[in-house]
Amino acid sequence: MSAARIERVRSALSTAGVQALIVTHPPNIRYLTGLAASAGALIIGATQCTLIVDSRYLEVARGVAARIDGITVRLASGSIDQAIGEQSRSCQVSRVGIEAAYLPVSRYERLRAALDQDSADFSAAGARTRAQIVPTEGLVERLRAIKDAEELARLREAARRLSAVASRAREFVQPGRSELAVAALVDAAIRAAGFERPAFDTIVASGPNSALPHAHPTSRMLTEGDGVVLDFGGIYDGYCVDLTRTLHLGPPGAGFRRLFSAVRDAQAAALAAVKPGARATDIDGAARRVLERHGLLEAFGHGTGHGLGLEVHEEPRISALAPEDARVETGMVFTVEPGAYLPGRGGVRIEDDVVVTESGCELLTNVAVEL
Amino acid sequence: MSAARIERVRSALSTAGVQALIVTHPPNIRYLTGLAASAGALIIGATQCTLIVDSRYLEVARGVAARIDGITVRLASGSIDQAIGEQSRSCQVSRVGIEAAYLPVSRYERLRAALDQDSADFSAAGARTRAQIVPTEGLVERLRAIKDAEELARLREAARRLSAVASRAREFVQPGRSELAVAALVDAAIRAAGFERPAFDTIVASGPNSALPHAHPTSRMLTEGDGVVLDFGGIYDGYCVDLTRTLHLGPPGAGFRRLFSAVRDAQAAALAAVKPGARATDIDGAARRVLERHGLLEAFGHGTGHGLGLEVHEEPRISALAPEDARVETGMVFTVEPGAYLPGRGGVRIEDDVVVTESGCELLTNVAVEL
Repeated sequence: MSAARIERVRSALSTAGVQALIVTHPPNIRYLTGLAASAGALIIGATQCTLIVDSRYLEVARGVAARIDGITVRLASGSIDQAIGEQSRSCQVSRVGIEAAYLPVSRYERLRAALDQDSADFSAAGARTRAQIVPTEGLVERLRAIKDAEELARLREAARRLSAVASRAREFVQPGRSELAVAALVDAAIRAAGFERPAFDTIVASGPNSALPHAHPTSRMLTEGDGVVLDFGGIYDGYCVDLTRTLHLGPPGAGFRRLFSAVRDAQAAALAAVKPGARATDIDGAARRVLERHGLLEAFGHGTGHGLGLEVHEEPRISALAPEDARVETGMVFTVEPGAYLPGRGGVRIEDDVVVTESGCELLTNVAVEL
Repeated sequence: MSAARIERVRSALSTAGVQALIVTHPPNIRYLTGLAASAGALIIGATQCTLIVDSRYLEVARGVAARIDGITVRLASGSIDQAIGEQSRSCQVSRVGIEAAYLPVSRYERLRAALDQDSADFSAAGARTRAQIVPTEGLVERLRAIKDAEELARLREAARRLSAVASRAREFVQPGRSELAVAALVDAAIRAAGFERPAFDTIVASGPNSALPHAHPTSRMLTEGDGVVLDFGGIYDGYCVDLTRTLHLGPPGAGFRRLFSAVRDAQAAALAAVKPGARATDIDGAARRVLERHGLLEAFGHGTGHGLGLEVHEEPRISALAPEDARVETGMVFTVEPGAYLPGRGGVRIEDDVVVTESGCELLTNVAVEL
């Protein structure tokens, strides 16, 4: 399984103009090897594949190498970057890619220095010219965006479990309870549902706080007449799912009902726009046009969705800012979550998770959307 | 409070050879403004200070500007990096610093392009030369390493609460319970103790698993005769504390007792070495020498400690790999956590949190160290 993933990276190297890739983004290392480490590197060359770890992860890394053909383990006795530099001596390459979206400038400079040092060692021996470091982007992320059957099974199960938590929203959201207390109940339910942990800080935004799309729960007490946005996620077997529902305590007024139905219609329009080959900007635009018709264009300041997988925000981005030529493909999994926020008053967001199918999309989450 | 922190960054700009600093690391933005946002930027110049956020954080950012004199808010209508580029037009500077330890290579390249574009606009108007981007490191982190009274009060309270959780370790660690079940109990106790959430994935490593310093809890059942490493932390009012105890189920054998007392002695030696002006490498070395005397030098593969604050790993690093001239100062808060790990057999780690005082150090955590 993972050997095949490494092979797919290998066959993408030449297109990226490199002979080897230094993978340093932890979720990418996990995708390719199964190793969940906070630090480390995987160097993929034409024939070699080396997993560099510090002593904390040595035992686990040896287990990885035992499971996946063609991976060798190298222990970093000093820093990971030093070990990458040393390892590069054994790679007969002139152009080495780094993951520019994640590698910080300072590590880039250190790696460059380490490779220069190597080349000095070797030019003394007359063996090699300096390897050039080439910024690359998205080599592994593009593979990760299309989920395989095993990943889809996990995401499906994760979404089923998260939906079960969401179906209890009414039970959590009660007048006289603080946002923080509601968040604690949601988090406990997420764990009780078998998730490793919440995928991000649970949002419970009530009354005027619901006008903040990324509100942190406060000690504000929920009260009759509040709209309440509940946005939460879970990590199940490494994979993230994410769901939002907006509730109202007591009978909602006409204004809130209009806001709610505009967002619900916007979500329906975006879902209807999802199919293989659809532009990310068009899916986003479908939601945005509905909100514009309701005079809510300015009230929708964020994107329509984001990919889900080993990270809770990954490719594809379903946004007005996505590249014009970015299109969704069968097997991509992402959120569809339009919202509308009226500062000082309140907001509504509705979010579900979908997988792109050959004929359109399938909802992974499954819980009623109603006030 | 926070206006003073911004002022301290401002007065460090010239030493770093820049006229303005683009702060993009979220904990640094939080330290300087109180804004806890996953994205955004703070540009600090000689006279200006601009907080750039996307629409999700606009309301909260306006609250920040209302509280802190001299901060203006700018909404990023496109990407944060575009807004940084645009904002730089109004900064009359030729050298702008970035946070090289965090800014990814790709964002660095985009910023450079954005500044070039600005300079093209302006050279048409004859107004300016191109601003140069200068990698800087640690400007804000160095300030953050020394805690002020308010931060110390939070850390002290956090450590007191975490110690209360640790004092219940025996209750959590029971034969017949899985590592995962123990971790869930610890996490629930952390939340019940008033923490926002665990500061990292709680480690419950039993039997042979305890030889892995960064083990993830598994479904392995705890059994009589196991050593069990419990490493957990909590975030309290934004600040992180971290604690490890090693227990034994049933009477420990002579080998385990020796391992335990070697690590306990190593911790005591490191604690005794902490005082203002002590080298980080000497504090680490004090622990390492004790383990070496017990023939356990190879068994201690990680550093002795790490700073605690808005991040669970921050400055200072108490490690053999720390710069030779790195010295601890009064007001620094860090962990002291030597360990010894015997692959296939098991390990011991003992961790407490300290603040450097004028005469040595004060333990913030306070819970018995015993088998």
